[in-house]
Amino acid sequence: METLKNKITQEGKVLSDTVLKVDAFLNHQIDAELMLEIGEEFAKRFKDAGITKILTLESSGIAPSVMTALKMGVPTVFARKRKSLTLIDHLYSAEVRSYTKQETNEISISKEYISSNDTVLVIDDFLANGQAALGLMDIVSQAGATLAGFGIVIEKGFQEGGDELRKRGIRIESLANIASLTDGEVMFKEEVAR
Amino acid sequence: METLKNKITQEGKVLSDTVLKVDAFLNHQIDAELMLEIGEEFAKRFKDAGITKILTLESSGIAPSVMTALKMGVPTVFARKRKSLTLIDHLYSAEVRSYTKQETNEISISKEYISSNDTVLVIDDFLANGQAALGLMDIVSQAGATLAGFGIVIEKGFQEGGDELRKRGIRIESLANIASLTDGEVMFKEEVAR
Repeated sequence: METLKNKITQEGKVLSDTVLKVDAFLNHQIDAELMLEIGEEFAKRFKDAGITKILTLESSGIAPSVMTALKMGVPTVFARKRKSLTLIDHLYSAEVRSYTKQETNEISISKEYISSNDTVLVIDDFLANGQAALGLMDIVSQAGATLAGFGIVIEKGFQEGGDELRKRGIRIESLANIASLTDGEVMFKEEVAR
Repeated sequence: METLKNKITQEGKVLSDTVLKVDAFLNHQIDAELMLEIGEEFAKRFKDAGITKILTLESSGIAPSVMTALKMGVPTVFARKRKSLTLIDHLYSAEVRSYTKQETNEISISKEYISSNDTVLVIDDFLANGQAALGLMDIVSQAGATLAGFGIVIEKGFQEGGDELRKRGIRIESLANIASLTDGEVMFKEEVAR
C-alpha cells in the first residue's frame, strides 16, 4: 500500500536494525485518514472471506481494526492484556511473550463476543516473531471459530513470524512488508502485483 | 444522543448502582458505525473551537477518538498507562487513581505530539469521579497547550467528576448523561435542547 509505505519512509524512525518506531501515525499519535485507507484496503482484500468478526489486541491494533470493521460492517473485539495469568471462567485466554519488552502477558477475550459461528479476521499493527499472532490464533481456536487470516499493517519480513504462519497455510495480508532496516534505512519487500 | 442512549438501554448491563458495563459496543467489542456517529457528534459540537489535536487514554478512548479525529481532520494521540511512575525526559506524565480497580497508574504522552501551539479536545469513554480527566488536563497544562474541553461518551452524572469540572469553567460535552443506575435500570438526565 503506497500511502502507508510513503508514511513509513517519511515519518518512521529506524532505531536499530530490528526496531522501527511509528509513533507519529500508528502507535501513539494516530493518523485517522490513513487508518481509514488501511481499513478500506483490508476490507477489499478480505471481501469474499465471509468475515463476521474482527479480532485485535489493545492498544495499537484498535484504530486499524475499527476502520476495517466500519468498512466491512461487522463488529470488532479487542483482546485485553494483563500481566498475570488468571483463569477466569467467562474468558478465552492465551499467553503472549514479548521479546522487545522481555515480559509475558496474558491476553483474553470474553466468551460472549466470539463463537463457533464466527469467521474471524485478525488485525494487528505489527507482525514480527509472531508471538501475538499465535496467542490470537489460540483464542480463535478455543472459541471453535474459523480463522480467515491476518491483516497486518506492518510486517517485519526479516523476522520469522509471517513466513512460519504462511508455511502453515494461513493467509497473511501485510500492507507494508519490510525487508530490512539496516543502516537506518527502511527497505520494503516487493509487493506481488494484484 | 439518541442512538447511543438506545444502545445503552438495550445492550448495557447494570452490574450495581454505580457500575454500567458496555462491553458489547464500547469497552471490549466495538460498534464501529456507532463510533463514527459519536465522532460526527463531537466534531459538530466542537467545530468552532479551533481544535488542532485530540487527546485520549488507552484503550477504550481510542475508537471514539479516532472517529472524531477523522471527522475533524486532526491527529489524535493516546496516553499510555503504566503501573509505576518512571520519570522519563521526553514524556509528559501524570498519576491517575482508579477507584474501581484500586490502583494508581501513570499516564504519559510523548512531548513530540503535544505542544503549546495546540488546542486540545480530550475524548474519553467514561467520566465518573474525574480522576482520568484530571490526569489528562495535567498533561495538557504541562505542554502549555489550550484545553478546549472534554468530549465524553458516557457521563455518570450521579458521580461528582463532571460537575466539579463544569464548576471550574471547563466545557464538558457528554453524549449520554446517566442520572442513576438504581434497581438495575439506566435513567438518563434530560438533555438540554440544542
